[in-house]
Amino acid sequence: MIELYYAPTPNGWKISIMLEECGLPYRVAPMQLGRGDQHKPDYLKLSPNGRMPAIVDHAPQDGGGPLSIFESGAILIYLAEKSGRFMSAAARPRSEVTQWLMWQMAGLGPMLGQNGHFLLYAPEKIPYAIERYTREAKRLYGVLDARLAERDYIAGDYSIADMACFPWIMTHKAQGLTLDDYPHVKRWYALLRARPKLQAGLALGKEERKPMDEQARKLLFGVDAPAHADAQGAQQQ
Amino acid sequence: MIELYYAPTPNGWKISIMLEECGLPYRVAPMQLGRGDQHKPDYLKLSPNGRMPAIVDHAPQDGGGPLSIFESGAILIYLAEKSGRFMSAAARPRSEVTQWLMWQMAGLGPMLGQNGHFLLYAPEKIPYAIERYTREAKRLYGVLDARLAERDYIAGDYSIADMACFPWIMTHKAQGLTLDDYPHVKRWYALLRARPKLQAGLALGKEERKPMDEQARKLLFGVDAPAHADAQGAQQQ
Repeated sequence: MIELYYAPTPNGWKISIMLEECGLPYRVAPMQLGRGDQHKPDYLKLSPNGRMPAIVDHAPQDGGGPLSIFESGAILIYLAEKSGRFMSAAARPRSEVTQWLMWQMAGLGPMLGQNGHFLLYAPEKIPYAIERYTREAKRLYGVLDARLAERDYIAGDYSIADMACFPWIMTHKAQGLTLDDYPHVKRWYALLRARPKLQAGLALGKEERKPMDEQARKLLFGVDAPAHADAQGAQQQ
Repeated sequence: MIELYYAPTPNGWKISIMLEECGLPYRVAPMQLGRGDQHKPDYLKLSPNGRMPAIVDHAPQDGGGPLSIFESGAILIYLAEKSGRFMSAAARPRSEVTQWLMWQMAGLGPMLGQNGHFLLYAPEKIPYAIERYTREAKRLYGVLDARLAERDYIAGDYSIADMACFPWIMTHKAQGLTLDDYPHVKRWYALLRARPKLQAGLALGKEERKPMDEQARKLLFGVDAPAHADAQGAQQQ
């Protein structure tokens, strides 16, 4: 049984989607980021960076004690290797997946995170920062669009690279972007959106999504609320 | 033979260090980021995100054609798997390495990149952004310091997780940080710094490091030069 420490945000959805898709049995340990569950000592023992998601595999393949894993990209690789699904074992197609997974982890995720922060959460409007991250967001969308121009999925068959990117592309409206500008991304997005298991992953804990209050904002960002904060963007950590 | 597309920056050093450490034969294709080599069409075919480093393995294990790999984290995993060194094949210790490698790729690297940008390169001083990224840089150093409090290396034996973090920790002065505040990081840093192969990796292309001119700045950041730009920080992309 895999225990998923989870809140319904893009990085959480990566794992809820993968767990639904790969069929490994799991149960959810819901986290309330707004009350600081991610900073509690017991949680830090299994996720020392103090971020969500994390998993604990209570039946690891080596027969040893519970195995805890943090960082969504590392969890995806672990689950793909454990289930034997959504990432090839052969070096070449496998590397194709890890390349685009790393691209999501190192580029798309962090930079959309900064873009969302300066667009939606920062208490002051800072034109330089907004311009910087909007430009980078558009560049990254362009890279993905070019990649998808000649293929249905990001890296070979449907893989953990798609599952890593999809939840962040879901935030396009909050990021000030439209998929109409990226037709190949738009086609891919619709293709994935139609998958029942992906939908099941996205539905997990949907009832927990609610507007962020002032205390939650301070816990998450260490800043005061801007007047225009909205519920949709607010939980896209 | 592995061809390394390289410039002497933290992300480039990750790979030059690993190639020296793992002993696979390689040759260097030097890149001039300041003249935009990373944006050239031939380079984008093998590194579609337009960033350095990338490798081409001209003798991949499957006997097929040349295999190109971008994203430093994916290159490190590929080289570890090809050489059988610096990452265990067993699921548990292997995941420990990928967790901390992802932590570097998704957190330490991108956030120190933003900190460096707003401290050194942005044409205006933006207190909110400087405070935001300095706080995050200190938090990440604190996470690494806690991790190293009870172990010599980041994840089991010396691994690609150490090689990924080391070049970014090298930038501590430019980031406005001192290792004196992080005694376990300081001890680990000295331990790694003493490795001859790591030193050889760092020395690669040292003669190419020079101050960034105005055209280079525009190519890399799309911004004009601040008065205080310096040569040390300028190439820490």
